[in-house]
Amino acid sequence: MPHRPIITLITDFGTADHYVGTMKGVILNINPEVQIVDICHQVSPYDIFEAAYALVQSYRYFPSGTIHLVVVDPGVGTARRPILARAGQHRFVAPDNGVLSLLFTREESVKVWHVTADHYFLNPVSNTFHGRDIFAPIAGWLSKGVEVEKFGDPITDYTQFSSPKPKRVSENLVKGMTLKVDSFGNLITNISPEDVPELFSENPPPFKIIVNHQEITRLNLAYSMGRPSELFAMVGSSGFIEICINRGSAAKILNANRGMDVGVVIGGALPA
Amino acid sequence: MPHRPIITLITDFGTADHYVGTMKGVILNINPEVQIVDICHQVSPYDIFEAAYALVQSYRYFPSGTIHLVVVDPGVGTARRPILARAGQHRFVAPDNGVLSLLFTREESVKVWHVTADHYFLNPVSNTFHGRDIFAPIAGWLSKGVEVEKFGDPITDYTQFSSPKPKRVSENLVKGMTLKVDSFGNLITNISPEDVPELFSENPPPFKIIVNHQEITRLNLAYSMGRPSELFAMVGSSGFIEICINRGSAAKILNANRGMDVGVVIGGALPA
Amino acid sequence: MPHRPIITLITDFGTADHYVGTMKGVILNINPEVQIVDICHQVSPYDIFEAAYALVQSYRYFPSGTIHLVVVDPGVGTARRPILARAGQHRFVAPDNGVLSLLFTREESVKVWHVTADHYFLNPVSNTFHGRDIFAPIAGWLSKGVEVEKFGDPITDYTQFSSPKPKRVSENLVKGMTLKVDSFGNLITNISPEDVPELFSENPPPFKIIVNHQEITRLNLAYSMGRPSELFAMVGSSGFIEICINRGSAAKILNANRGMDVGVVIGGALPA
Repeated sequence: MPHRPIITLITDFGTADHYVGTMKGVILNINPEVQIVDICHQVSPYDIFEAAYALVQSYRYFPSGTIHLVVVDPGVGTARRPILARAGQHRFVAPDNGVLSLLFTREESVKVWHVTADHYFLNPVSNTFHGRDIFAPIAGWLSKGVEVEKFGDPITDYTQFSSPKPKRVSENLVKGMTLKVDSFGNLITNISPEDVPELFSENPPPFKIIVNHQEITRLNLAYSMGRPSELFAMVGSSGFIEICINRGSAAKILNANRGMDVGVVIGGALPA
Repeated sequence: MPHRPIITLITDFGTADHYVGTMKGVILNINPEVQIVDICHQVSPYDIFEAAYALVQSYRYFPSGTIHLVVVDPGVGTARRPILARAGQHRFVAPDNGVLSLLFTREESVKVWHVTADHYFLNPVSNTFHGRDIFAPIAGWLSKGVEVEKFGDPITDYTQFSSPKPKRVSENLVKGMTLKVDSFGNLITNISPEDVPELFSENPPPFKIIVNHQEITRLNLAYSMGRPSELFAMVGSSGFIEICINRGSAAKILNANRGMDVGVVIGGALPA
Repeated sequence: MPHRPIITLITDFGTADHYVGTMKGVILNINPEVQIVDICHQVSPYDIFEAAYALVQSYRYFPSGTIHLVVVDPGVGTARRPILARAGQHRFVAPDNGVLSLLFTREESVKVWHVTADHYFLNPVSNTFHGRDIFAPIAGWLSKGVEVEKFGDPITDYTQFSSPKPKRVSENLVKGMTLKVDSFGNLITNISPEDVPELFSENPPPFKIIVNHQEITRLNLAYSMGRPSELFAMVGSSGFIEICINRGSAAKILNANRGMDVGVVIGGALPA
């Protein structure tokens, strides 16, 4: 390995406790040469979808060979399996609870293993902190060059939820939802430009995006193009349409949150 | 030294200011090869016990040779001493205010030095930010291989508070307290299975754990075994009994905080 | 390059999203040997002054050769320029929106370039996340040894706001303002000891510092010298006068925030 191996971390452990630091200690105790990179530890507690989203938005920007460790694990201590996945040159370590779902959707070819080689785990294994006792050690040993096949058998029945897709329910109405509110208060939807190509045509029709009974009728190219206190839509860095406000929180103005309905009415009057 | 030296950090500086970053700059300016690992910077302001707890829960998971820097320092600028401690292959740098107390309790053999060699400090030393001016430089020079003896004389009169121990006040009543609320809202007590062995016997009697006038009567093996909105007890990753709720905050439900009384009534009726 | 290059990060991206992690991925994909150090990601959203302050307080503690990346960028997606600056052996990458102003004020000799060499950027460049698509790549390539001149032409018309200076409005009255509230609740003013030398003379006169209609009349040398619940002034680690309270939040007590007037009345009665 020419470079220091990289392990990224996504958890819902927050940053006010020792939990993340302890996991890093376990990794460095196995392989002191690892470079550990925090993606996010403030995933909402137990929120598998939010972790899946943070992973799928970030992993492909890391170098080939990176190991991505995701520990959002409401089922810790039960029979849910620890798994290991490989997609291209990236490897992933997580509980088998769907937290890799968006990755599975995005990558055409993913291989998954059920990790059973418990001689790689800490001893004893607690019922409450598999991040420390199981997942961090797997990532540490992977980074030392242990091959994925050594950790267990390949499986195909891993947990995968389908990511929510927008639907065109009539000629001029697309229904989607909000996927995420970021820390600026931008409301990220699951609607891509391909879902509403009319809005991105050369001569776009008028439109309304409806969230929580309020209407957004403007599409901008950059946050700072928004007029003071005016809600607008734009294509964000995720590739999805976001509802934004220039230097303010759209989520607060709309009193909106994740998982809310988003309607896009194209060209004219609202459907009955 | 075969590997990059590791310095861990525990502070109450939060993550909204430049303070932690500045300390890292000072360390890297002395030794750019150091690997710095954040344990926690959100220790409640001035809370020496909370920092002591984060340290004792995490340090032993790090590799031999790790230097642990703890800066929770309400007495900064006064005569309280900077100290350096060694326990096994781990070294510790902190103000002499009791923040290493739980470490001293845990480790059988600890040696402590009063750091007086001020040529290792930044110059000038402020009255307000010894993390930057004194403690970070000590850790940096330690990581460069300067021997502990070079920093000052050994002392034995360092500050140590005794960690609160549960008491068996009658045959069927054990009294302890809550040590910590973690970011999930789990209430970590100071009661270990050894303090209430009956509960972990082959044929355990009924019991009540009483916190803030509410009773917990169930003991589970994993968080996810809890029924919806039911409080339960379990042995957490710290080795102590925690009060938990599946996918929720026990601290919120109990309106409980650190330092509250915890009573364990074993086998039957409440004592008068 | 004898050591691993260091890149520091200041952003307003918070730590609850994947944004900072993604930027780190981009940097490490260009140069896996970089050591990335977080200064602060909790700059208040869009707050250019706060970021400028965090930078100027921290950068000079880092080793020669460090690259400082500041992404607080309300104008992302507009014509505002990406710039690169060099001051001594430190280099800086930021949008040209004034976020380097306090650095420009502090350093006598700074050279600035307008970055136009877009073959160093990610492709495509989004309109919303130049931290990922433009600024992280510039820092990454700089750390690989690409010379500053390769990124574009030198400019002198970069944005610089003048940092607010206190004024002596009469013989016994100095007017300044609050620059910052830190996470302890200390109110950092823009008033230095040189602005009110009488207070630091051998035989200082009585004085009043007035913030939000309340008076502070005591000057201490260390936080812990404050009596319980008594507001006092002291010279903080930034070199400025701070309003503090021992083990408490002065900002809360004063109901004060950044940008408020601070009056220092020296020797006697309040001016009319």
